[in-house]
Amino acid sequence: MKRSRVRLDVDERRAQLVELGLAEFGTRSFDEVSIDLLAERARISKGLLYHYFPNKRAFYVACLEEAAGRLVARLDAVSTEGSPLDHLVRAVDAYLAHVRGHGRAFATLMRGGIGQGREIAEVVDRTREALVERLTQRLAEVIPAVAIDLAPPLLQVALRGWIGFAEAASIAWVEAAIAAESDPGRAVPDAAAVRDVIVRALVATVQQAAG
Amino acid sequence: MKRSRVRLDVDERRAQLVELGLAEFGTRSFDEVSIDLLAERARISKGLLYHYFPNKRAFYVACLEEAAGRLVARLDAVSTEGSPLDHLVRAVDAYLAHVRGHGRAFATLMRGGIGQGREIAEVVDRTREALVERLTQRLAEVIPAVAIDLAPPLLQVALRGWIGFAEAASIAWVEAAIAAESDPGRAVPDAAAVRDVIVRALVATVQQAAG
Repeated sequence: MKRSRVRLDVDERRAQLVELGLAEFGTRSFDEVSIDLLAERARISKGLLYHYFPNKRAFYVACLEEAAGRLVARLDAVSTEGSPLDHLVRAVDAYLAHVRGHGRAFATLMRGGIGQGREIAEVVDRTREALVERLTQRLAEVIPAVAIDLAPPLLQVALRGWIGFAEAASIAWVEAAIAAESDPGRAVPDAAAVRDVIVRALVATVQQAAG
Repeated sequence: MKRSRVRLDVDERRAQLVELGLAEFGTRSFDEVSIDLLAERARISKGLLYHYFPNKRAFYVACLEEAAGRLVARLDAVSTEGSPLDHLVRAVDAYLAHVRGHGRAFATLMRGGIGQGREIAEVVDRTREALVERLTQRLAEVIPAVAIDLAPPLLQVALRGWIGFAEAASIAWVEAAIAAESDPGRAVPDAAAVRDVIVRALVATVQQAAG
């Protein structure tokens, strides 16, 4: 009993640190995030923080894994009510809400600005694969199979392309929003307009007839 | 006279090393590329190679800059004969030929697998910006202005999205080709089919009517 109680505390402490990290990495650049400050906020010693995470990069990877897991869970939780297209629209809305919630962190990560390493690239790749897998499974619900006229190998290339579209458009959108903070005259497209562009790109991609 | 002759030799030597580097980084992973072997092939001492490039990463960045410059030059050289859509089709063909020519290097770079740093991310970003700039300038030729119904801020988001589409689809295509080397039964889409998917995504992206 006691042992599992201690174990739970360890997990809770770790989760609390990751939560703090998500907020920090989301608003500051990797270099600006201070481990000292994080330890202070969590009211633990710097030594104890390093007990959970051997270095800042390992801590970053743990936060990234948590964020990626939340994104996938969020997409899985999207209601499938209404038409398949409604489902797709809600899924892209959920994706954009996630991106907005992690704005700076998302843009920095996806542009490789933190000095990416293999383990970071792996988390990003694994998340992309999870999204492509879900898309492939559900695509037939969203777009009638009869309307998908790409052979499976080409469809995989097209779906990966579309994930790239959603990522790149989201980065450009977040960066426009960041630029507008210091230049309020700058116009930033609203989320619904960005979502429509992304949804339309998928439908056009898998339907030869739209070309 | 003599001084400029020596200077030319320096530039030629540097260009020769970059040429060798492009071939090496194109077929091997960053870690597998050996500076000793490169010096041997160029018939210079390892010390002299480090005179041109302080370290392997600097050498890699020089090769990447050369490859990026060639891509942009190649796209600028595409014939504008025929219809605007013909022009776009040829531009995407040129892009895919570049990607195929630098297959492994392109896939590794774009997946962040070499442990990206800021300077590498900058070359990639600068190249993307050059492509978006050209696209923005020429889009009205390719697609009649009257048919582009996205406001400029949203159009920029959409074009960045499309560049992301082209990159991600190209990576998936190159990786399918690499996988097929050790699994000949695996189907790889041909370049023309991949190009059609990419071209179609752009047309659909900028034309609200296609959605």
